[in-house]
Order: sequence, then C-alpha cells, then structure tokens
Amino acid sequence: VAEDFGVEDIWRYDVAAALEAVHVYSLVHDDLPCMDNDILRRGKPTCHVVYGEATALLVGDSLQTLGFEWLSNTGLNAPVKSVLFRLLAHAIGINGMAGGQQLDLIFENKADVTLLQLESIHRMKTGALIEASILMGAAMSPLAQNEKDNDALRSFGRALGLAFQVMDDILDVISDTSLLGKTAGKDIAQNKATYVKLLGLEKAKFYFHDLNQEACEALQQCSRPLPRLLALQRWLLDRTF
Amino acid sequence: VAEDFGVEDIWRYDVAAALEAVHVYSLVHDDLPCMDNDILRRGKPTCHVVYGEATALLVGDSLQTLGFEWLSNTGLNAPVKSVLFRLLAHAIGINGMAGGQQLDLIFENKADVTLLQLESIHRMKTGALIEASILMGAAMSPLAQNEKDNDALRSFGRALGLAFQVMDDILDVISDTSLLGKTAGKDIAQNKATYVKLLGLEKAKFYFHDLNQEACEALQQCSRPLPRLLALQRWLLDRTF
Repeated sequence: VAEDFGVEDIWRYDVAAALEAVHVYSLVHDDLPCMDNDILRRGKPTCHVVYGEATALLVGDSLQTLGFEWLSNTGLNAPVKSVLFRLLAHAIGINGMAGGQQLDLIFENKADVTLLQLESIHRMKTGALIEASILMGAAMSPLAQNEKDNDALRSFGRALGLAFQVMDDILDVISDTSLLGKTAGKDIAQNKATYVKLLGLEKAKFYFHDLNQEACEALQQCSRPLPRLLALQRWLLDRTF
Repeated sequence: VAEDFGVEDIWRYDVAAALEAVHVYSLVHDDLPCMDNDILRRGKPTCHVVYGEATALLVGDSLQTLGFEWLSNTGLNAPVKSVLFRLLAHAIGINGMAGGQQLDLIFENKADVTLLQLESIHRMKTGALIEASILMGAAMSPLAQNEKDNDALRSFGRALGLAFQVMDDILDVISDTSLLGKTAGKDIAQNKATYVKLLGLEKAKFYFHDLNQEACEALQQCSRPLPRLLALQRWLLDRTF
C-alpha cells in the first residue's frame, strides 16, 4: 500500500515487520494445546512442539510487544506513529482479532450460528488485521490522506479480509496438509463454524468470488491505480495453500 | 509521578490504566497451567480456573493490546504518546518482562544461578515495568524533562523494582496464602531461584533495606520533592502482602 502511494520511506519495512510480528504472535498462540492444539504450521512443527508450551506462550506475548516496539522505534513523525499505533491496537484487541477468536471459541460446537454471526466473527478474527495493514500503509502516505481514498481502501480491506477467510475455510476442506503447511481438515474435526459448513462448498466458492469482486470494485474507487494491491488481490484469487 | 510533577492532565488516569492492564495481562498468563499453574490470585480463583485456559490466554493477549490501545486513545500530544509507547513496549518485551520470564524458566531447577544473574532476571521480569511506570509519569510532565531528574527517577525505579522483587521472595517464605492473596511457598515448591534461596532470609532482608535506601537517595536527587513517590516507597517498606 505504502509503495502504491509512492511512500519511499525506509520505515515502511519496519511497519511491515511489525505487522508480521503481530500476525505470527497470533499463529503461535492459536496453535497452543489449549486453543487449536496444532502441531504443524508453515510446514514445520509448531513453536510449542519444539520449545514447550511455556516458551511458546512467551514467544507469542513477546511478538505482540515486538510489533508495538518496532512501530515505536521507527523514525516516522509522531502524529503518523500515533495513527499507526491506534490502527494496530484497535485491530488486534477485544474489538478485533482477539475478540473474534473468543467468539470463535464460544460458537465452537454450536449448531445454530448464522451467516451474519460468522461474518462478524471473521471480520474481527481475520479481517481486522488485514484491513489495518492496508490502512496503515495508507496512513504513511500524504497522498492517501483524503476521505475518499481512505473509504475505498477500508472497503477493499474489509472485502479482501473476509474473502481470505472464506478461502481458508474452503482450502481446509479441499486441500491437503502438505500443500497448506498446516493440518488440513481441522475445522471439521473441531466442529468449527465455517462458511463451507454453513453454505456448502459451491456456495462458499461463489461467495468468495463475490467478495473478490467487491474488493476489486473498491480498489477502482481510489484516486490512483494501485498495482501492488491489485496483485495482492489476484494472488488471493489464485491461492491454493 | 505525574501528580508529583504537577501533571493535572486527565489522561494520567488512562496511562495508569494502561499500565495496570499490561500488569494484569502478565499475571493472567503467569498463572496459566503451563507457567506457574496457580489457582489463586488477589484472593480469588485465577482466570483460567474460572473461564478455562483458552479464554485466559485470550484475556491476557487482549489486556496487553488494551494497554497499548488505551495509550493510543489518550488525547496527549503525539510526541509524548510516542515516548510512552516506546517506554512501555521496551519494558515488557524480550528485553524486559517477557524476556525475564523466559530466563526465569531457564534457571528453574538450576542450582548454579549467581546473584548477578538473579538480579538481571528480576530487573527484567519485575523491575522494568516498575521503572517504565515511573518514567512514563515523568514523560507526561514538561517539568521533568531534564536529564538529572530523569536519571534520578530511573535509579529510583530500578532500586524500587528490585526491592519489590526481593520482598516478594521474602514474603513467599514468611507470609501465608490468606495474607498474600496468592499461594505462598510456591517458589520453593517450584525450585525457583530466589533471593532467599541464594542469600538466606536474613541477608535478603538486609539487601531489601539497602535497595530501599538506594531508592530513597535517588529520590532526593530530584529537583523537587516527590511526596507520592516517597509514600510509594514507604508503603513498599511496610508491605506484608
């Protein structure tokens, strides 16, 4: 996003690294025995399998902090940093990622989750951080500081985030462990609420394409072409892992 | 600290709340079965006992985020916020609280920990957040923006933080569960490296008093009297829980 908006600032790498640290924190904790109890991630044994549960807990805790620490160590000007902090913290806390994860726990094994509930869980659990990543890139660029672009990017992020999760649900069913780099078929085994379970495989695929279309249209509302974001969206469309 | 330096800003409560959220995050995770496996905290059943392990994990995760979120939501000016973020993130990450906790794990059951090693573990595990709390209060006040006061407050924080931990080790041995509000005698049961184990009870008490003296002297180096900090230190001297 930053590069599409002409941000050549070297700090964009630090901001990206901060986002990755926070994302990895969520994976390490998500794989813990008390959560998904997963032994495979990115094709390798999970953190707690290799280093033990206590260390994995601290690794996740530290990675969250590291994300904020890296943001705070950038040489960006203070008002921009302040916006980045707010966007990140809001995206991953009780109203975002962690809150969505808790809702996910609550709805596990419940038969009566509605499509609307599932959508709001996933917007929080997965979508919020993707949306924030996009808005954080825009926040670094003076060119993106207009309402219209910000709205368009927000819509793009929301649609893309949800599309990502729908595809994740689809891949859990149709792909296999070696391609995914994580254990396939876990959602069904854990009786999780997923789009495939709720809509069936075919309708879930249609929904995925609708969301991608929505993302694509949102991107076209921006005041300038954003080739990297378009490429990201295309990649998502083709992803099989 | 903020009040001692004449900060009447209402945001000081938000900053204090952010610090408390982060502190409580550390307690909730510390009590988890994979860490200290404690069932009692502040005289009540611990979070995972009441709500289960997965939720307690998310509660801790969210409280850390909430600390950063509350900081980011304050109306303080951006450069001050930026300093607060840096101080907090640095204090609780791999070079502070979480790193100290990991060292603590590594040294558990090891007979050969030296006093110097123990001190550096505790400076990270407990001291760093106490030190940061004090420096964050000062960072909110234009009156405290001189090198001498900052150095004095840093020394005060370091000595106080360590004194707190030494007393914690002492109380684990001499106090009882009902007074502590957490399980007494856990350190010995878990074969943890403590000051009492290393120095013996009497020498640990002397060390505590030395550190308190050091804190007291540091405070006197400040350019103005700081009655609230002095009261905090006196309270620590008398604490039996």
